[in-house]
Amino acid sequence: MSHSAQQNRQVILAARPRGFPVEADFQLVESMVPEPDDGQVVVQAAYLSVDPYMRGRMNDAASYAKPVEIGQVMVGESVGKVIRSRNQRFPEGQHVAGMFGWQEYGVSSGAGLRKVDPAVAPLTTALHVLGMPGLTAYFGLLEVCQPTANETVVVSGAAGAVGSVVGQLARSAGCHVVGIAGSDDKVRYITQELGYDHGLNYKTSDDLREDLAKLCPRGVDVYFDNVGGPVTDAVFPLLNVAARVGICGQISQYNAREIPQGPRLLGHLIVKRATVRGFLVLDFVEKYHAARSRLTELYREGTLNCRERITDGIENAPRAFMEMMQGANIGKQLVRLCPE
Amino acid sequence: MSHSAQQNRQVILAARPRGFPVEADFQLVESMVPEPDDGQVVVQAAYLSVDPYMRGRMNDAASYAKPVEIGQVMVGESVGKVIRSRNQRFPEGQHVAGMFGWQEYGVSSGAGLRKVDPAVAPLTTALHVLGMPGLTAYFGLLEVCQPTANETVVVSGAAGAVGSVVGQLARSAGCHVVGIAGSDDKVRYITQELGYDHGLNYKTSDDLREDLAKLCPRGVDVYFDNVGGPVTDAVFPLLNVAARVGICGQISQYNAREIPQGPRLLGHLIVKRATVRGFLVLDFVEKYHAARSRLTELYREGTLNCRERITDGIENAPRAFMEMMQGANIGKQLVRLCPE
Repeated sequence: MSHSAQQNRQVILAARPRGFPVEADFQLVESMVPEPDDGQVVVQAAYLSVDPYMRGRMNDAASYAKPVEIGQVMVGESVGKVIRSRNQRFPEGQHVAGMFGWQEYGVSSGAGLRKVDPAVAPLTTALHVLGMPGLTAYFGLLEVCQPTANETVVVSGAAGAVGSVVGQLARSAGCHVVGIAGSDDKVRYITQELGYDHGLNYKTSDDLREDLAKLCPRGVDVYFDNVGGPVTDAVFPLLNVAARVGICGQISQYNAREIPQGPRLLGHLIVKRATVRGFLVLDFVEKYHAARSRLTELYREGTLNCRERITDGIENAPRAFMEMMQGANIGKQLVRLCPE
Repeated sequence: MSHSAQQNRQVILAARPRGFPVEADFQLVESMVPEPDDGQVVVQAAYLSVDPYMRGRMNDAASYAKPVEIGQVMVGESVGKVIRSRNQRFPEGQHVAGMFGWQEYGVSSGAGLRKVDPAVAPLTTALHVLGMPGLTAYFGLLEVCQPTANETVVVSGAAGAVGSVVGQLARSAGCHVVGIAGSDDKVRYITQELGYDHGLNYKTSDDLREDLAKLCPRGVDVYFDNVGGPVTDAVFPLLNVAARVGICGQISQYNAREIPQGPRLLGHLIVKRATVRGFLVLDFVEKYHAARSRLTELYREGTLNCRERITDGIENAPRAFMEMMQGANIGKQLVRLCPE
């Protein structure tokens, strides 16, 4: 262990970000690791996941979950090891994943905790291909968008944690898969490592719609959207009749200070008889187990991969989060909290 | 007959409208009524329907149907009587509805023609509650939006030909029904004659979203949209979890000269897990017969009504169309081409 078991470092929300978050919106604080009550476990986190949804939790706005209050530890999932246990289901030494927040040690009653076996797959995969991003990709693509073989699937945020999985699942389904991402390195990653048929760097395209049309000669049957904004504006005119659009995220909009404006898109849906559906992975909770089994199978077959970008130290979690929001990561952005 | 059976007056598309259509975009021409070939009938139209979809056909743009060419008779459905027949299925004197276009007489092989019985319901109903607008409302509400009892249904363009039917069907389904329309007279019509629970005049509202929220205290479960634009902007923030939005029309956008801009709306769909689906009545053609039977039943029970606004003379079809696009009509806008 890198720190005394008694000392816990935590990142709290110090201020509600106005627009893009800044360091001053967060604060590193120290506290003592509590002793577990009866039924509780203390977990030392090894890796923390930082994800786009966290930006929404920093706002004081009604949503599907309560906002983080000022002074509260930022929410987040991490994976680690039980170091003290008064709960028979989770003995000391058991690896677990759970919503411990941005801190080095967490206490849990066991509710919502899930066991992780590092012999099956590396611990970190519990936070991407076998975790929430993987499940989001799985349900968003297969249940919401329902692609069939030979259809054209476009994925925005294609090199991110969710997009990486979407592309590989779409390929497995026999689709023509085109990814949109924000750098040439990301385009190489998705085409060379993930098996995307084509990739497009939206930041260097002079005419995104035109360039995308060339990569989708038969139009777009499925659009899995993580990004929104101008990327989505380019995709909508290319939708085919009976197209399905899954709205997973709108990361390009999360830091807007004013209500973002853009071309009105709903008119496209009439002629194309297209369906747009927003979703949350939480809506599929009854099916998590089956989906995770399938994802684990694919991972172990070697047909499901995701690069990791690792930032060290809880004190750097805010920076890791901000860099992820700016697109610095290829694949999954993680924060390493202690050596495995 | 008001005109010689030999003389046919037609309205052709003279120019592609730039923005809102003007009289000069149309031209009245005369021709001789052709003799029917073997298998054909000649129909004298009694009423012509003018509908928002026609605006799209005036553009030179790919859509679900070919544009009307310059010099061609404008497309449209009318109802009338067979006056000469060389087709045993449609004898002289038979009332029929068909896509005869903006003209007094039409020739048909019988394909796409449908018999209409004025003893069952007035001829004009074949162009609204028992015709395309009625079917559009029926499938759009019941198949696309699938409301259940006690849900809140919001309808834009509530006093139009489609909206009139949507509101009454939603009431029949036991929903709380709120209509948005463009005048106080229309609001009175939908609440006093059609049974809408509430109506809202969007033109006089200072804060459409706020006013609508008051009329929808439990949020919006179903939004049937004929209009788009700022009306839709006000509805989206009020959508409930699992809301369904049916996009039937976007009449507020059809005459735009530039791509219309507005607040980005897709982000609302994630947290609300809402579905937006565009549709065309044509997609439900296999179910027309059953739907029309049901609509006829409701009409004869007196639970399905629609006011008519009648403009006389084929020469006034362009004006009737333009007035309809400006919202002058309460209920269905028709053009009467000859006395019944």
